[in-house]
Amino acid sequence: MNFPSRKIEEAINEFSKLPGIGKKTAMRLVFHLLNQPKQFSRDFGERIMTMREQVVFCSTCHNVSDDVVCTICNDSRRNEELVCVVEGFRDVMAIEGTEQFTGKYHVLGGIISPVDGIGPDDVNIDSLIKRVISREVKELIMALSPTIEGDTTIYYISKKLADTGVNITTISRGIAFGSELEYTDETTLGRSIANRLPYENYLVNRQ
Amino acid sequence: MNFPSRKIEEAINEFSKLPGIGKKTAMRLVFHLLNQPKQFSRDFGERIMTMREQVVFCSTCHNVSDDVVCTICNDSRRNEELVCVVEGFRDVMAIEGTEQFTGKYHVLGGIISPVDGIGPDDVNIDSLIKRVISREVKELIMALSPTIEGDTTIYYISKKLADTGVNITTISRGIAFGSELEYTDETTLGRSIANRLPYENYLVNRQ
Repeated sequence: MNFPSRKIEEAINEFSKLPGIGKKTAMRLVFHLLNQPKQFSRDFGERIMTMREQVVFCSTCHNVSDDVVCTICNDSRRNEELVCVVEGFRDVMAIEGTEQFTGKYHVLGGIISPVDGIGPDDVNIDSLIKRVISREVKELIMALSPTIEGDTTIYYISKKLADTGVNITTISRGIAFGSELEYTDETTLGRSIANRLPYENYLVNRQ
Repeated sequence: MNFPSRKIEEAINEFSKLPGIGKKTAMRLVFHLLNQPKQFSRDFGERIMTMREQVVFCSTCHNVSDDVVCTICNDSRRNEELVCVVEGFRDVMAIEGTEQFTGKYHVLGGIISPVDGIGPDDVNIDSLIKRVISREVKELIMALSPTIEGDTTIYYISKKLADTGVNITTISRGIAFGSELEYTDETTLGRSIANRLPYENYLVNRQ
């Protein structure tokens, strides 16, 4: 297509680089910006650049943060003895969205995956071990994806921490609320029977 | 939701202001930017700002342009005697996409809509009339939406130009290629019978 302006073409190309945004959507977004006052695009561009430029990683939990220590690590009302281990900062947001967790986090920044050449030294495991030892963490909740890589990572961490006496738990797997039994895959269904819970727990979960 | 960084929250809010982008999509886009090198976000933000800052409107046809006169108006291979009148620059792109039109354009920047308080002086009709008189335009193709506002605008322009002898045409309406007769609305179907074409034209169109 012939664009009447090279600047517009460049802006459309930039939007097209983002995931899930095709050429048509990118055009719609750029046309929208053209119909708004200049200040709108100025704010938009500047906030994106500032965000990427200034966001750092928390020195304690490695979560994204505006300061050296993130707001969650700084929050004295949160339980320091309970640490939830996740792969990335998206998982932190997902768990925060549930408003069910009052402990702190540790963001690994990846999981051990020999196939992709990611070893234990490439993820934030060393700092987790130091943290468990120095801050008297009582329980580590492993909230990693139920994949071979996730399981490998949990196994590696549990071995490393075997002497510390820290209690290692994993988030529960099973059939999601509202989903149909007959469409659940066999592994999940099989494990959900093996890991069955007393009815009292079920009643608590339903509340 | 508790965001660990105010900068991230602001960036997500900026994306959410764009049409068709909700909170979840905005989050996905910001997380993608966080996973890319800083240069990626710098280029992205700067290209958007530069585009909005530097894009101007062509002094002849009012299309978006990088210079005082746009590339289409500057193209001497295009027929100056044939001018296609459209509502906005999106329409120019749509018509250019067909690669069927070799004339020039005139972008009204809106259509007459008394309900919305948009009168003839609010759209680029004066400059169109001057252009028709001074540049010896032979034919004006009105490519406006088939709405009351579009029809009003065509009527107003045709009245204003009645003395100039310019030939005013409209793009053809009818049943779209590939669409089913039985699902076409009655107005379109009725008019397509009233405005029927000789079979020779049909054959030319099919080529």
